[in-house]
Amino acid sequence: MPRYKLTVEYDGSDLVGWQRQKNGLSVQEILESAVLRFSGESIVVHGAGRTDAGVHALGQTAHLDLPRAYPPLEILGALNHHVRPAPVAVLAVERAAENFDARRSARGRFYLYRIVNRRAPLAVERGRAWHVGPDLDAAAMHRAAQLLLGRHDFTTFRDSLCQAKSPVKTLDRLDVVRAGEEIRITAEARSFLHHQVRNMVGTLKLVGAGKWRDADVAAALAARDRTKGGPTAPAEGLYLVGVAY
Amino acid sequence: MPRYKLTVEYDGSDLVGWQRQKNGLSVQEILESAVLRFSGESIVVHGAGRTDAGVHALGQTAHLDLPRAYPPLEILGALNHHVRPAPVAVLAVERAAENFDARRSARGRFYLYRIVNRRAPLAVERGRAWHVGPDLDAAAMHRAAQLLLGRHDFTTFRDSLCQAKSPVKTLDRLDVVRAGEEIRITAEARSFLHHQVRNMVGTLKLVGAGKWRDADVAAALAARDRTKGGPTAPAEGLYLVGVAY
Repeated sequence: MPRYKLTVEYDGSDLVGWQRQKNGLSVQEILESAVLRFSGESIVVHGAGRTDAGVHALGQTAHLDLPRAYPPLEILGALNHHVRPAPVAVLAVERAAENFDARRSARGRFYLYRIVNRRAPLAVERGRAWHVGPDLDAAAMHRAAQLLLGRHDFTTFRDSLCQAKSPVKTLDRLDVVRAGEEIRITAEARSFLHHQVRNMVGTLKLVGAGKWRDADVAAALAARDRTKGGPTAPAEGLYLVGVAY
Repeated sequence: MPRYKLTVEYDGSDLVGWQRQKNGLSVQEILESAVLRFSGESIVVHGAGRTDAGVHALGQTAHLDLPRAYPPLEILGALNHHVRPAPVAVLAVERAAENFDARRSARGRFYLYRIVNRRAPLAVERGRAWHVGPDLDAAAMHRAAQLLLGRHDFTTFRDSLCQAKSPVKTLDRLDVVRAGEEIRITAEARSFLHHQVRNMVGTLKLVGAGKWRDADVAAALAARDRTKGGPTAPAEGLYLVGVAY
């Protein structure tokens, strides 16, 4: 059974997230249905990570085993044909080693969180960014973000439904940069806890709004208590940008 | 009757364009309905220019006369409240001179046309850019675009339904720049003919694909004949970025 690696983009707005669920359409179901139509077989598509409902991906990664070998470009074309009209696009298909596992082989995950910081609501970017009306101080958010770098118990930023064995993770990058009315937050780690990026962003937003100071962020992290962290930023601003192997 | 200037953003995907029409929802109707709910009066909202169905705006401009004066921020908040849930946002409201006319006072119009040039179809950017699969040479497109600058009879790039009195326009800027898989075309002129930007983009795409050379573009312009130009690029890639006064 030859193994293939897929790189996948999706607009998560109207999807229930990556993982197959009974209550709506998931990226996994869309891809597995396309694989069935292409190959004639029911095959599991394994993602590098679950994204929640409403979260987007510019470069989710997955692997699957096909019953026989095909040229990667043939798989790419067929899957993109069969996923229509779902808001999913297969960007790349590569032959992978037998032991390649999209989730377990991952060495780094990259996320982008987009805030549009302006008085007016969103029209063109609706569903694709978090709209925050009051002025945010992005430089203050960036400074506070640096307090979260490194190896920590991130329980404060972990959803209660998180299934990870340990709350200890190493955060390698958390940059906050303003570009006009947009604030772009980039996060990088080997892996993240459930809702970790959105919970960190919701906390940094309190700093940007002047409600929290650096010391509050440090204290929240040290508390190891979800109730001491800021609120969860909405799904619509989050993008899984890529996975490194 | 105090006059106000509005700056408006919209996602044109599901709209019939700027102008009020019987066959669907227009930006003008959405704004006029919001003004009616706010002011209690039926008031015409005059746009700087009509955009077609599917075309977006980051900074359309309009003017309207209200029965009495209000603080601009009150108008902004009320209109954004009443346009919901339409994909329209009022970005700015300013008091304008009595003789200000969004269309006639305009001294410059700025458009952006976005092409995503990659094999895979669009997911996140679907409806917001033109998907072109085969590789395009953006540098060649830029060189050819420079042949269109200046004052010309643009009949070759004018839709047959165009109502302008003269096909002679002065094109001040037509830049083609690649940024990764995206090709961004920026166009600037005092005014444009109907479909002019989309017809120029459709022609430049032939150059980018290697089907046309510079001389073909020059010959098409000189022909003053729509049938000698390239096809009309799709509406979904076009953004009215702003209007200068």
